[in-house]
Formats: sequence, structure tokens, C-alpha cells
Amino acid sequence: MSKKPRTAIVPTREENFPEWYQQVIKSADMAENSPVRGCMIIKPYGFALWENMQRIFDGMIKDAGVQNAYFPLLIPLSFMAKEAEHVDGFAKECAVVTHHRLEADEEGGLQPAGKLEEPFVIRPTSEMIIGDAMARWIQSYRDLPLKLNQWCNVMRWEMRTRLFLRTSEFLWQEGHNAFETAEEAREDALKMLESYRHFAEDYLALPVITGEKTADERFPGAIATYTIEAMMQDGKALQAGTSHDLGQNFAKSIGIKFQGRDGNEAFAHTTSWGISTRLIGGMIMTHGDDDGMIMPPKVAPYQVIIIPYLNAENPDAVIDMCETLKTDLIQKGIRTKFDKEEKEEDVRASDKMWGAVKKGIPIRVEIGEREASEGKLTWVRRDLGKQTKETCLVNQFVTQAHDILNNMQNDMYERAKAFRDERITDISTLDEIGKYFANDKGGFVRLDVKVMNEKGFEDVMKTHSLTTRCMPFADDGKMVLIGKAY
Amino acid sequence: MSKKPRTAIVPTREENFPEWYQQVIKSADMAENSPVRGCMIIKPYGFALWENMQRIFDGMIKDAGVQNAYFPLLIPLSFMAKEAEHVDGFAKECAVVTHHRLEADEEGGLQPAGKLEEPFVIRPTSEMIIGDAMARWIQSYRDLPLKLNQWCNVMRWEMRTRLFLRTSEFLWQEGHNAFETAEEAREDALKMLESYRHFAEDYLALPVITGEKTADERFPGAIATYTIEAMMQDGKALQAGTSHDLGQNFAKSIGIKFQGRDGNEAFAHTTSWGISTRLIGGMIMTHGDDDGMIMPPKVAPYQVIIIPYLNAENPDAVIDMCETLKTDLIQKGIRTKFDKEEKEEDVRASDKMWGAVKKGIPIRVEIGEREASEGKLTWVRRDLGKQTKETCLVNQFVTQAHDILNNMQNDMYERAKAFRDERITDISTLDEIGKYFANDKGGFVRLDVKVMNEKGFEDVMKTHSLTTRCMPFADDGKMVLIGKAY
Repeated sequence: MSKKPRTAIVPTREENFPEWYQQVIKSADMAENSPVRGCMIIKPYGFALWENMQRIFDGMIKDAGVQNAYFPLLIPLSFMAKEAEHVDGFAKECAVVTHHRLEADEEGGLQPAGKLEEPFVIRPTSEMIIGDAMARWIQSYRDLPLKLNQWCNVMRWEMRTRLFLRTSEFLWQEGHNAFETAEEAREDALKMLESYRHFAEDYLALPVITGEKTADERFPGAIATYTIEAMMQDGKALQAGTSHDLGQNFAKSIGIKFQGRDGNEAFAHTTSWGISTRLIGGMIMTHGDDDGMIMPPKVAPYQVIIIPYLNAENPDAVIDMCETLKTDLIQKGIRTKFDKEEKEEDVRASDKMWGAVKKGIPIRVEIGEREASEGKLTWVRRDLGKQTKETCLVNQFVTQAHDILNNMQNDMYERAKAFRDERITDISTLDEIGKYFANDKGGFVRLDVKVMNEKGFEDVMKTHSLTTRCMPFADDGKMVLIGKAY
Repeated sequence: MSKKPRTAIVPTREENFPEWYQQVIKSADMAENSPVRGCMIIKPYGFALWENMQRIFDGMIKDAGVQNAYFPLLIPLSFMAKEAEHVDGFAKECAVVTHHRLEADEEGGLQPAGKLEEPFVIRPTSEMIIGDAMARWIQSYRDLPLKLNQWCNVMRWEMRTRLFLRTSEFLWQEGHNAFETAEEAREDALKMLESYRHFAEDYLALPVITGEKTADERFPGAIATYTIEAMMQDGKALQAGTSHDLGQNFAKSIGIKFQGRDGNEAFAHTTSWGISTRLIGGMIMTHGDDDGMIMPPKVAPYQVIIIPYLNAENPDAVIDMCETLKTDLIQKGIRTKFDKEEKEEDVRASDKMWGAVKKGIPIRVEIGEREASEGKLTWVRRDLGKQTKETCLVNQFVTQAHDILNNMQNDMYERAKAFRDERITDISTLDEIGKYFANDKGGFVRLDVKVMNEKGFEDVMKTHSLTTRCMPFADDGKMVLIGKAY
């Protein structure tokens, strides 16, 4: 007995959240696994989203005085060894280059040849190689602050991978700044975190909690790690971006020195900060529903899709109207999809409609022949579906389109925020942690930071697979948030 | 006895062209060698140029219906082995990943650990890994054409490297398109080459000769390689971009099949095409002079720099005027540099002036106190220097700025084209090739393609370190261009 499912995505979120996640990505054609273990292929629709994210955030960091540059992919092993904590943090997941040629073997296969004197690792992060350049570039306090960023690929050999969330190779931006004083570095780390909050909340519609990581969750080698933490629809946390105050640790290990205003030599104070393609996973798990992805309008590859419904002798009038509408919307700066070439015989309108739903295109416009004859169209907001279905004059829609998109953007944020806020529970004792997280319950608990010093704390955390997410700034560092996490 | 050199760059082009090239890059602060053998660091000023180039060319390929995506950095060895010519072409310069962890050794150093079952190479190019995805994505003729591109880093282990021109790691775009028919693939390869010509000539002011590579200069595995060839100021050729018609070679080796319109299964016809950071080297060697870099205005990181000359009690009026001018120019879409913060005591105006010259900023504006009091400024075009120095009203300059930049762009192209055209010599016999290139003479010779079949041709080429550059389209493939090359 095969019953037609009532949702476009099978299984639903409630039935199997991890599998739902994979199916949303597949249905939206955003990414797929590659034959290279743990490495993903970002498909055109997923990459278009990343390009929009890059463009927006790149503008934000340039406004903050950061300059883009590019540093080598490979890091000599001896560099990695310079910062002890840093090595410990990354040694278990480094891809190592040991040879620089291939030779045919006897069976007609290929073998590595030309052994390197010193092996290299593919950058898991670039503190050491950028720090080495900073050591050469910075001579005097006049060379400070120095603020550098690169958009690049990095590699961390992960054993269990999941598209966007945890892959051996991923794309990110990594910022590396250097300052004269400890205070400036700390302020900068917080300022970059604030730019992440702004970006996540105001562009990706991801509500985040800003705070400081507990000592055991710090970036290897940092004196403080600041984080934005989001809550997914299964109640788990996603670390969505981090900004590290590295103090003088890296400057000392790699020699970033400068002549100070007093004429004495001093070590610089550095920061590093990064966000990655992981944010796309966060958007899917925050905004998606049982019919697929829902794209936040501000970063959506397409903001409006126009679908003609043709059924009679005169399709040209509808097609012309769709063309005109597309031109009008594009002129208003709205990213609009309409493919005149996609003929009706190739793809049925209802398939196009479901395609648009699964891809999460914010507004779907439908134009049939009767509507066309009246100069009208029907539009639907992806997040609200039928309840917003509205028929109006074409010009009226063009005038309103920006407002509809803005309202949707705001609603998505508010909805996600309400969802999250309902799932943060204040508790006061260690015992209650275990009780709260029994029965696979999601969400975060919040309690006094002192609980971390209590006997048995680590046992409770381990038993329920919990981690400290952060000490929220909103609580002045007096409370700690705890939850399960991706 | 130290005599002050009369040029900002020492040595001059005539004295030592390769060393001049390195010094121009250093003086303009565009790039430097890294501690990773053969890998460069692209510094902010060089990277800003690359970003402008990317933005412009990315728009061009999107207009051509190409979609960006991202494919894995690593390629399994077994993939490389699938196309015999392709392996032969790249086996000698592959960085090979053999391990996925690091372990501390007895001396406190680090050693590779966790040997991989199958090693990977870092992509030298991505035909195989993208072809493998195409084989999954393409089922029917309806899925064609498929046009993909990625902006990424690639690695080719080079023994002798030179900044931008030949580095082990470089940045590029690689396009990979698939078609139903041989004719479409050929047309597309030519169309993408035409986009390279347009980009090189109309944006980078690099005159190029379009043509087909001779058989021995083809991309490994291609049935035809098309190229844009530029001539540097030392008379050597630079291959500035290539577009390959891969026929069905790659489709057959990796299985890109589709059901055709006739219902039968067929192999796709594919193309690949790439330009890289090498183009920056080409611009330096085409446009630079003995005072440093000259940036083509359309891609220059800054198009105008404003330098205040302050010497008396009232610097504020000059500074205010510079600020206003900067705002006015930016409003007109002109990338303008003026750093109010750079105080006179830190950097003298003459140092700023020479800095701007060496960086090749197209227009330098100087404002002194007397000029400011009259609402005037002095501007100089970088390529023509003193002969264009002109004092005019500020508003007049603002109105003319776009025209000045456009004129400079055109002049740079015309100058480079005249230089090149003077150095292409028609000859008719094999003997004359040797005679022409005696005494280290640069430039290209052009002669009948039949000469390549003559006995002794290869000896002459080897003796004088010559290569065939291309069979120019302008000569209908009947002639071949020969020269020394980077």
C-alpha cells in the first residue's frame, strides 16, 4: 500500500531530523557527497547562496578596514610544531603532503614518488603561515593594526562527515589581525564577533547567542574564544562563528615583534576569526520545513520565481507578461528567475512549482491565461504557503515586492527566535541537567557558571553527550548555556 | 661613490628584465615568496587587483550562462589514471597526500601518520573530478549543455618558480562545459577564448593574438587547444589563457554519457578553459616602466590617489578639500585613495608620491595650500608622467576624471599593441629563424605552417629555446608564430 506522502520531503523533521536534513539538501540541489571521502561538491544553487553570503560579509569586513590577501595552502610541518596547543588541536585531522610526483607502477597504476624533505600539511587554519608573514611585515607600531583576511578552502580530516556541517574540506573566511595592545586585540575580537552576529541575524535570519566559550572549548592556543551559537529545529546547538583573542601566544611562538612607541621591542597581540559554509547547514536546519528549504530573502539565489500556467491556444501573452515582469523586478534589484526556454512539454508547471518550493525561493509568482488577460498574477510566500496566496494586479506586486521580501525576512528571524527562546530553560542544580536532557529532549539549559566546578559535572555532561555552548554576554559571564551540539 | 639612480626601479628593464620584474612587484607591494617553496603570498594590493579581475570576468561568464560551483581539492589517484595523456602531462608535478594525521616523534618533531589506503593529489586541474560529477548529473540531452566554473587554487609542483608567472600554487578559474555535439563543443571553446580576448584587451589593456596551439603544445588529452598569446616588453611570449576542445576523450575515460534525441546513448563533448593569476605577471611585464607598475584603470585597485602637500599653519583647508574631492570621485564610481589619518610627520608627501608611482595608480592628484586657496588641483597621468601634468579647477577634474581614465586605458592598449606589432617579423625559411633569434633578440617570427614538417625544424627550435606560440586565426591557420616564452 503506497500512500502519497503529504510533504515534499520524506522523512519529515519529526520522523528523522538528520535524514530530513540530507533530503532537503538533495531536493534543493545544493550539494552532494563526492568520491573523495568527506569532501563535498557544492552545486550551483548552493554555491550561489555562498556567493551572496560572501559578497555581503566581504563588504562588512572591508568597511571594518580589513584587507583581503592570499596565503599558501601548504604549511611546513615545522611551523605547525611551533605552538604546542595549536598542534595538539589539529594533529589528528591533518592531510599530509609527502611527495611531489607520480610514477607508474608495475600494474599500470600510479604511485607517489619524489619524497619531500619536509612534509607539508594542507592548512586546517592559517595562524602559523599568516603569522610568519606578519612577523616579516610588522616592524614598528606604525605598522599596526594590521588586519588581513582570506576567503579560501581548508582541510580537516573528519571521520564522520555531514554536508555543510562537518566536511573534510570546507570554504571559509579567516581573518587575522594584529595589534599593539592586549586591550585593542580583545576589543577587535569582540568587534568581529559583533559583525558575525549582525550578519547571522540581519542577513541569514539566524538568531544567535553571543558569548565566551568555556576554557575547554577554546580554540587551541587562544586566551579567549568568543562565539555565536544558534539553535537548530531539533534543539541542538550549532556553533555558527568564532572570534579568538590569541593574546601574545601566537606572536611569541612565531615571532611577531615590533618596536613600540617607547622604543622597546614588544610582541604583538593577535586575533583570528572565521565563518564557513557550515552556516548554510545552520540555515537549512533553522529555516527548512517539511517541504524543503526556505531561503532568507536577503541571501536567496533567487528571490522571486515566475511560473507560467499555459493550457490553451495563446501562450504568448502569458510568456510576454512573465518576461516583462522579470525585467521590471530585476530593474528593482530583485533576483528573479524565469526561464522562457523551459518549454511546457519539458517541465510541467506543477513540477516547477514543487521545484521552487523545495529550493525555498522566497516568492513564487504564478500567471495563468485568465489572470494574464486581466493583468493580474498570484503570489505566494514560501514560508507561509497557501495562507498568503494573493491575487493582485501585476504593477501592484512589483511595487510591493521589496516589502513582501522584507516582511518575510523579519518573520523568519522572529519565528526562529521565538522557537529558540521557548527552548532555553533556567535551572539551578547539577541534578536537573540530567533530568532535563532525559528522553532525548533538545534545547539549552542555563545555569550558574559555578556549576562547572561541582563534583560530577563532567560525568553528567558525558552521560548526556552535552557540551557547554557559551557564557552569554547578556548574563555578564555569570551563567553558562549547555546543550547538545552539531 | 653612490649615485642616486634616475629611476625608481633598479635595475631598469634594459639592464636586467627578470630582476626588474621582481623589483616592480616588491616596490608595488603586490606579492612575495613564502617559506613554502614555490608558493607565493598575494599581498593586499596584488589581491585587490585580482578581485577586480575576478569580479569583471565572473560577470562575463555568468552572462554566458555558466554557473559557479565548487569541487573537491583532492583527486583520487585512480581518477588521474583514467586519461593516459592527462596523467602523463601532470604526473611530474603533483603534490601527493598520503597521510591524514601527525604524530610527535622522539625528538619532539612531527611525523606523518595514518597512511591513506589510496593517496590523493592536490588538483593540478579538475577535468577528472568535475567530469566524474558530470557523469552523474547528465542523463539526457535535456541536461545539456552543462556549463560549470570554479574559482579556486590549484597546485603544480614547479621546480623553477617566478611570482605570478609560474608558482606551485596559483589561483584561477576553470570552466568545464559539456555538449551534445562536436560542433557545439568546438564553438564553445572558441567562444570562451573570445571572452578571454575581450577581457585581456578591453580590461587589462593586453593585446593578444588568438589562435590554435600546434599539436605538441596542446593540453594533455585535448583535441584542440586555443590560446591568447601576449608579448612582453622583452619580446618573449606569455600564454595568457587557454580554451580546450576535449572532444569525447574525457567523456569516454570518465563516462559522461547521455541519452540522445534519437534515443541512443552517446558520449558528451566537453571543453575546459582557464585564466589565472599569471595574467597579473603579464600586465606587469606589458605595462610596467622603469618607475614601477602601471595599472590599467579598469582593474586598478585605486584609480586616483590624492596627495596633500602641507607646509604651513593651516593644513585643515587642504585636508577638507581632499576629503570632499574623494567623496565626489567615489560618488562617480571612481576608486579613490586618500588617507586622512596618514599624518604628514609619518609619511612625507614626496614619499607618498613615489609610492603611488611605484604602485602604478593611474591618476595622481596633488593639492597644495596655494592651489587649495584657488579651488585648484594638479593631476598627472601615471603612464605619461610630467608631460600630462595639468593644473585645473577641482570641479573640472571631477567632470573629466572618467575621460582621463578611459583615455589612459586606450593609450595603454594602443601602446602595447604598437610595441608588439613592430616585433612580429614575417620570414620564409627555416634558416632565417636561427638568424632572427641570434643575439638574444626578442619578438615573434611568423612563417608558413609547413616549416614545422621540415627536417631540422626541431633542432633550430631547441638551439634557440623557441616554442611555437600558435597558428593565428587571422591567418586561417596557414601560418605559425614562433618565439621565446615564459
